Amino acid sequence: MSHNSFGHLFRFTTWGESHGPAIGCVVDGTPPGIAITPADIQHWLDRRKPGQSRFVTQRREPDTVEILSGMFEGRSTGTPISLMIRNEDQRSKDYGKIASQFRPGHADYTYWAKYQGIRDYRGGGRSSARETASRVAAGAIARKVLDHILPQAVEIRGALVQIGPHKIDRRAWDWGEVEKNPFWSPDAVTAAVWEEYLDSVRKSGSSIGAVVEVVAKNVPVGLGAPLYGKLDADLAAAMMSINAVKGVEIGAGFDAATLSGEENADEMRMQDGKVAFLSNKAGGILGGISTGQDVVVRFAVKPTSSINTPRKGVTTEGGEVDVVTTGRHDPCVGIRAVPVGEAMMAIVLADHLLRHRGQIGL
Amino acid sequence: MSHNSFGHLFRFTTWGESHGPAIGCVVDGTPPGIAITPADIQHWLDRRKPGQSRFVTQRREPDTVEILSGMFEGRSTGTPISLMIRNEDQRSKDYGKIASQFRPGHADYTYWAKYQGIRDYRGGGRSSARETASRVAAGAIARKVLDHILPQAVEIRGALVQIGPHKIDRRAWDWGEVEKNPFWSPDAVTAAVWEEYLDSVRKSGSSIGAVVEVVAKNVPVGLGAPLYGKLDADLAAAMMSINAVKGVEIGAGFDAATLSGEENADEMRMQDGKVAFLSNKAGGILGGISTGQDVVVRFAVKPTSSINTPRKGVTTEGGEVDVVTTGRHDPCVGIRAVPVGEAMMAIVLADHLLRHRGQIGL
Amino acid sequence: MSHNSFGHLFRFTTWGESHGPAIGCVVDGTPPGIAITPADIQHWLDRRKPGQSRFVTQRREPDTVEILSGMFEGRSTGTPISLMIRNEDQRSKDYGKIASQFRPGHADYTYWAKYQGIRDYRGGGRSSARETASRVAAGAIARKVLDHILPQAVEIRGALVQIGPHKIDRRAWDWGEVEKNPFWSPDAVTAAVWEEYLDSVRKSGSSIGAVVEVVAKNVPVGLGAPLYGKLDADLAAAMMSINAVKGVEIGAGFDAATLSGEENADEMRMQDGKVAFLSNKAGGILGGISTGQDVVVRFAVKPTSSINTPRKGVTTEGGEVDVVTTGRHDPCVGIRAVPVGEAMMAIVLADHLLRHRGQIGL
Amino acid sequence: MSHNSFGHLFRFTTWGESHGPAIGCVVDGTPPGIAITPADIQHWLDRRKPGQSRFVTQRREPDTVEILSGMFEGRSTGTPISLMIRNEDQRSKDYGKIASQFRPGHADYTYWAKYQGIRDYRGGGRSSARETASRVAAGAIARKVLDHILPQAVEIRGALVQIGPHKIDRRAWDWGEVEKNPFWSPDAVTAAVWEEYLDSVRKSGSSIGAVVEVVAKNVPVGLGAPLYGKLDADLAAAMMSINAVKGVEIGAGFDAATLSGEENADEMRMQDGKVAFLSNKAGGILGGISTGQDVVVRFAVKPTSSINTPRKGVTTEGGEVDVVTTGRHDPCVGIRAVPVGEAMMAIVLADHLLRHRGQIGL
Repeated sequence: MSHNSFGHLFRFTTWGESHGPAIGCVVDGTPPGIAITPADIQHWLDRRKPGQSRFVTQRREPDTVEILSGMFEGRSTGTPISLMIRNEDQRSKDYGKIASQFRPGHADYTYWAKYQGIRDYRGGGRSSARETASRVAAGAIARKVLDHILPQAVEIRGALVQIGPHKIDRRAWDWGEVEKNPFWSPDAVTAAVWEEYLDSVRKSGSSIGAVVEVVAKNVPVGLGAPLYGKLDADLAAAMMSINAVKGVEIGAGFDAATLSGEENADEMRMQDGKVAFLSNKAGGILGGISTGQDVVVRFAVKPTSSINTPRKGVTTEGGEVDVVTTGRHDPCVGIRAVPVGEAMMAIVLADHLLRHRGQIGL
Repeated sequence: MSHNSFGHLFRFTTWGESHGPAIGCVVDGTPPGIAITPADIQHWLDRRKPGQSRFVTQRREPDTVEILSGMFEGRSTGTPISLMIRNEDQRSKDYGKIASQFRPGHADYTYWAKYQGIRDYRGGGRSSARETASRVAAGAIARKVLDHILPQAVEIRGALVQIGPHKIDRRAWDWGEVEKNPFWSPDAVTAAVWEEYLDSVRKSGSSIGAVVEVVAKNVPVGLGAPLYGKLDADLAAAMMSINAVKGVEIGAGFDAATLSGEENADEMRMQDGKVAFLSNKAGGILGGISTGQDVVVRFAVKPTSSINTPRKGVTTEGGEVDVVTTGRHDPCVGIRAVPVGEAMMAIVLADHLLRHRGQIGL
Repeated sequence: MSHNSFGHLFRFTTWGESHGPAIGCVVDGTPPGIAITPADIQHWLDRRKPGQSRFVTQRREPDTVEILSGMFEGRSTGTPISLMIRNEDQRSKDYGKIASQFRPGHADYTYWAKYQGIRDYRGGGRSSARETASRVAAGAIARKVLDHILPQAVEIRGALVQIGPHKIDRRAWDWGEVEKNPFWSPDAVTAAVWEEYLDSVRKSGSSIGAVVEVVAKNVPVGLGAPLYGKLDADLAAAMMSINAVKGVEIGAGFDAATLSGEENADEMRMQDGKVAFLSNKAGGILGGISTGQDVVVRFAVKPTSSINTPRKGVTTEGGEVDVVTTGRHDPCVGIRAVPVGEAMMAIVLADHLLRHRGQIGL
Repeated sequence: MSHNSFGHLFRFTTWGESHGPAIGCVVDGTPPGIAITPADIQHWLDRRKPGQSRFVTQRREPDTVEILSGMFEGRSTGTPISLMIRNEDQRSKDYGKIASQFRPGHADYTYWAKYQGIRDYRGGGRSSARETASRVAAGAIARKVLDHILPQAVEIRGALVQIGPHKIDRRAWDWGEVEKNPFWSPDAVTAAVWEEYLDSVRKSGSSIGAVVEVVAKNVPVGLGAPLYGKLDADLAAAMMSINAVKGVEIGAGFDAATLSGEENADEMRMQDGKVAFLSNKAGGILGGISTGQDVVVRFAVKPTSSINTPRKGVTTEGGEVDVVTTGRHDPCVGIRAVPVGEAMMAIVLADHLLRHRGQIGL
């Protein structure tokens, strides 16, 4: 048990605060012999990096990852891989107010109450979204593990499917579109709607929530285990552990509440000697075990709590204040959650692939 | 790590199949000195028990729990509590077809594929909702643990808030109503709507999904831990591990995607020297740590996959069949999930209470 | 984490007290498709069973194991296997004195102090050696797992190598002898010495310690993992967790303190294209990883604390008493520890085999 | 589960190789509000540091620890503490031979076989004793945790009690002596004997084994939990996980095999209203739970395998070679194991203190 670790056979432990000297993680359980370069990890970190469009925070971090252990002559040795990312953009500013205020929507009050008044308030400390860089770095290794065991098979991709009231048009879904707009939208038309909408949100100093969808293709049938090692239970924990996430669903998700048994049960036929499903309401998971269909997860990200409008908060001394956040913030923190969701999917699948191989073999 | 265990300091391990000799669980980590009788556990099991109305399966199980260890002279000793429930309603019927068929919507195919063709197909085997009796039994002990450490404080209650397209009217919410109708509805008017609706579903041999809400009152501030021991991450795993659950949300949940930062951030004032929140979009959890407000979780339950309409399935031999389920089944399995959700909430809170006391003290 | 569980991928959880209704365990992580009968488990339980000679306790327990889950048509399904052994020899006697006394050498005082005065004092409760039946039952399944993955390879055997001052003559070691005497001695001459010696110990109402050695042959090279999942670290925990064990050593063990580097380093040559070691001071483990040589573990078992000579003890009320144990007890509890040590070896190896397969493959 | 982590509520994860850029660890579960400075940790690291006498390796490492997270304004925040120690003495030498040789007594062959031929052979890589610096650093924090919860209570000290055939005279035991000689000997006379003896071992290019004893005073009664969370089982795993350790014993240890029940059972009397034991054969642990007496652990350390005498080894290509180690090495690696054993004791006690507080309270 560890509060700051995730996974079992493939397991990572993260550490670090927003404004400390560095953040990082230790990835344990990687099979030996996998070629991994810092550039392989950097590729995914760069996707997550702030400051790439006007819709994400302008904090500029090079986010350069260093590999401190577990690699030899370019290949994994099977021992723990320690990754570190220096915090370089630590502006020396006056934190006086934040130190004594509990901002609504933030974890200020809960950290303060839990940890007996001790709290690294600078930039949110441990509760900062900056920690997600460690997840993305670990996720890069998880992808390598999947590729190592199942060469050129599993594909994991994420997209933003909703910002505020604006959902994408699923009939227009085009994975090729996702990399072409600053929102990871699979639908170009909706991307344009979002652009205009987010500009107005940003200008008004407000923020808005979003929904992310992550899809894993070519996941072999059989990953996951009843009943507390279910693939969907681990995915739910993985996604809910991401900052600002308030809901997780698999396949039809909450819509399953409105479906009849006839509509919900994915029918099966044989195709080329294999089981083929005629629909995927299950999101690729039945009884906690992958079906071989696409594994489909969605999660809801709440709006950034740092906004320019004054909100009622309290102080550590028991006073009442109006809290206003000035300076850089994301109008829609959900955008940056897309690569994080992909990383968590990769981590869960890599762990379950090793667990399945351990118990049953491949 | 264990596929069939849940929790850390308060931890339970379940075992058993629908049509084996018994099901049960081992509950570890209970503090010593807690008075627990079989009747205390039976009380909660009886709430979950099938056969209580025409809206749940007519399988009749006395579901009598036996305490095999961990108790002495009526009090917990601090050692593992082993609970067993005999399976008594094992009708000797012909399982021939089920043995060779993969029913759509069920875990038949995934278990078969994962476990190399070995599968206890009788009544769903390990994937049967019958396993949830073990959760409810463990949950009864978790409630005792909460009461032992925080006397007469934490209250955990569940309700059904949606069946198919019919949601309850939240303004009419009355906890007193929940025990008065066979659906755990907190809204009498909607209960009547559901009754009529479910009768039609049942008569047509179909089934329908539902949404369950579980609320924990008087949870102390400070439970949960960043970042992979977050209270909401553990609740998400707990609820998603329940049979047929396809989505979990905390507080505003998926609606948070449509909220602005102003709407979402629960403002704070001081009241009687304590922090008081003016709303609860967060569902009682910020940064993974309880705020002291009500902890609010909802989960979506898919419709029963066993229906009377033929659905396309395949056979273990690679043939194609039309599957029809005859005999007893729940038209809305979500109803029986209410006491299960309550139990999982109790288990997560008891575990986190012990973990918090371990690291920090109370 | 669980106080009453052991192992990771192959993991068992035990429960039960000496004089409760039953004891048992839940074995999780067994691969599917392994043929296991109750008789397979019973075979090993019978070896451990008390009452087989005048040198072990005369408590007569049939120790009949029931399999409650995880098996279907004679083969493991991959889901948890629940095993239960009823306690049948619960003599209704007056426990009044034991209830209020802390016996020296027993866990009476520590259980009482830890668990706030709550203690099942009947027959030692949870601290009774009776719990080791669960280990032997789980060990029987572990052996099946080893055989399933490595057919007819790994052989695990235990022997008693010392009782009091009398050590076996290692030059006379004969595994065939082990089953022929009531001490599991591999040396017939020493067995005769022990017989006479133990008769005198028994008649004097005293007891004596012993050393057990367990050897696993044909363990593949590569099991174990640096640094906290070392094979020897897990073996040390496994053996030290057995009742009354006070020391564990691997290979040369404590004698390694007196060896020079030249003597200690097992030299290597090539033989038939494979690495062959010229000695086995390492006990088959280097750097926490198996070498392919015999894995050799020894553990010291303290003398039974229940003796007929009065010893100074105290009462729960703070009084001073002289404690005398009357009735059945083992003059040398180490004898019965042999099958238990074998079982723990099998469990550790099965877990590490699955873990190795998970991370690296076979 | 993690191969490179140890502990449950107080848990640390280590990473790093001897000749990589750095080694380090992540310590999770530290209570908040504890004042810890880098100097506090450095103090213990300096004790372990090589190069301090002619009896330990002359590798000179400043071993300067950096705290990268989990601290704020000099106090622990309750979030993970990341510690890093740069490897500065990475002499650029030709590793050609070591790369292709399996040295007897080392983990070269087992790592190579396990990890499919991938191996960081420089300085032993992950199997280097250098990793123990991470244990000592984590142990420094564990000591702070013990002091925080039990102010000025628990004292942990280690000593060397045997080198080769030369044991200390226990009647001469003087803790004050331990810091005065380069061997951590509690007996000045024996220290002088060792000095002469080790000089001869060193000059002959050989090495020798040793026994370390670690004692924890003022451990409260009640730490540890039956049956797989026993304090002694965790101590056994902790000590056996240290490089080169081949045996662990508690209290009388292996001598318990020669004791009668009368000799072994520590008698009890009342003293000042408290239970007082008249001896400590149990080493402070009964039934896996601390008795309140000194917790006494000993472990055997094998001789350094790197010696100047040629020994038979093999090559990665299947050839046979004579291996000679030239250059720096410890004649008795057991000396440096003393601070490491102390650290592991502190870690186990801190973990169990938190676990006990979690389940039962203090």
